[in-house]
Amino acid sequence: AGDAEAGSEKIATCVACHDAEGQGTAGIYPNLAGQSATYLESALKAYREGQRAGGMAAVMTPQAANLSDQDIADLAAYYSSL
Amino acid sequence: AGDAEAGSEKIATCVACHDAEGQGTAGIYPNLAGQSATYLESALKAYREGQRAGGMAAVMTPQAANLSDQDIADLAAYYSSL
Repeated sequence: AGDAEAGSEKIATCVACHDAEGQGTAGIYPNLAGQSATYLESALKAYREGQRAGGMAAVMTPQAANLSDQDIADLAAYYSSL
Repeated sequence: AGDAEAGSEKIATCVACHDAEGQGTAGIYPNLAGQSATYLESALKAYREGQRAGGMAAVMTPQAANLSDQDIADLAAYYSSL
């Protein structure tokens, strides 16, 4: 399962677009605060597997490429806990 | 621009997974309430253009296939207004 505390230490690049409180810093970046952890994991894995195009997929795909399953679970736990 | 009122009349199929208040009815369905309208439009258009796979894309792609740009703007306005 994801660990929100561990996730809070992995958000260094995420905050540029989603900030630490999970609010999109521009309209095109989704708010993540309180989002379903299951959905966040599903979306991050879809980006990691290159299953998404359009929108900001060109930015998110490389961001997710090096995340482990645990990283993804921790990040999802963190943002869903806000 | 999107019209939230008009959007509220177009959510008949959306509510099965996102309900009228924009809360996912199961973990795999994202919460939409208060999400950025720009992001919601971008995501719906990505599904409509078949640019997303993985996760629930197999469900969302046909859902979005027949939506007009105005439908998408209205739905995005509705859910982001919650």
